[in-house]
Amino acid sequence: MKIYNEHITLQTEKVREFVDITPRVKSAIEKSGFVDGIVLVAVLHSNAAIIVNDSEPGLLEDVQTWLDSLAPVRDDYKHSKKLESNASIHMQTLLLNQQAVVGFTERRLELGPWQFIQFVELDGTRPKRVLVKVMGE
Amino acid sequence: MKIYNEHITLQTEKVREFVDITPRVKSAIEKSGFVDGIVLVAVLHSNAAIIVNDSEPGLLEDVQTWLDSLAPVRDDYKHSKKLESNASIHMQTLLLNQQAVVGFTERRLELGPWQFIQFVELDGTRPKRVLVKVMGE
Amino acid sequence: MKIYNEHITLQTEKVREFVDITPRVKSAIEKSGFVDGIVLVAVLHSNAAIIVNDSEPGLLEDVQTWLDSLAPVRDDYKHSKKLESNASIHMQTLLLNQQAVVGFTERRLELGPWQFIQFVELDGTRPKRVLVKVMGE
Repeated sequence: MKIYNEHITLQTEKVREFVDITPRVKSAIEKSGFVDGIVLVAVLHSNAAIIVNDSEPGLLEDVQTWLDSLAPVRDDYKHSKKLESNASIHMQTLLLNQQAVVGFTERRLELGPWQFIQFVELDGTRPKRVLVKVMGE
Repeated sequence: MKIYNEHITLQTEKVREFVDITPRVKSAIEKSGFVDGIVLVAVLHSNAAIIVNDSEPGLLEDVQTWLDSLAPVRDDYKHSKKLESNASIHMQTLLLNQQAVVGFTERRLELGPWQFIQFVELDGTRPKRVLVKVMGE
Repeated sequence: MKIYNEHITLQTEKVREFVDITPRVKSAIEKSGFVDGIVLVAVLHSNAAIIVNDSEPGLLEDVQTWLDSLAPVRDDYKHSKKLESNASIHMQTLLLNQQAVVGFTERRLELGPWQFIQFVELDGTRPKRVLVKVMGE
């Protein structure tokens, strides 16, 4: 088994944004030349997340509203007195996830028709790094 | 390192159902013949999930009620006007997860006595596909 | 590709506690001698979790309070009549996660400056086991 690494840098225009990075993950698998394996997609920050889910724009708006209802911005967090991301952002990344592992077989990503690998920016406008590590043969 | 793939198809009778697929994951590891490695268990749909947790029936009822309280069915989601799953289902899959990676060592799954790999159907009665990708040596 | 396994045993003094196990994961990678690969960090219990996030003490207090608000201890859970962990603990482990997969490249963990691999004890004071499985070359 072999390994092929890429680091993607993403910089969104909005503070909150979902970016479909499925094409970039596919491209990394192609460049690896591997036929079968897994790809680890991991965000290297604690104020952004990776999800595998539908990317329909109405749904993404719903998900944003819902994340804010479950982990709202508040002034009385112990963490919020710092010059860092509000604690609510960290909670939202815990609800979602820092990484996804996706399989590929016969050079094709193992995703259903309504599944997209998405970078979820929760505290954006600065550049963020995502690791794409392809392991296969 | 080698790879062995299986695709499991699950079709539940109920719209909401937890299915313990630990025996099927164990069987895939046995068929692979690998002694040490990891197995990726990934649902290929965005309205079902994979969890690793206790499977006691009372707990599973509690978890269903709890998921519905955190991400309730609503008529005013922007996504819900479509002929697809209600947005609440997608939110529940985000709370849980689309995939789990479980280790195995000396041919045995690395699970505690109260851990079971479960397929969580959230919008069921149609067939759903789950990838079981075993990587090991 | 090769595999190196370690089982870490953690026993916290408090019932609820976050333990930064990044140094132990780094040590396992060093012992493996592998230069590039992934490490699976998985808790072998259903009343503890693994997260990758900031470890600032104020934030961790906020996260505890928040977990208790989303999945509170209750007497009327169907699961809670058993002599096991309250159902709320299982729900909190579902919100977080049972495992994390982290990459390493050129012998260095692929973590941002505010990311730490943390064992989250939710029902503690007894020893708990965590698998650290390093796969690489």
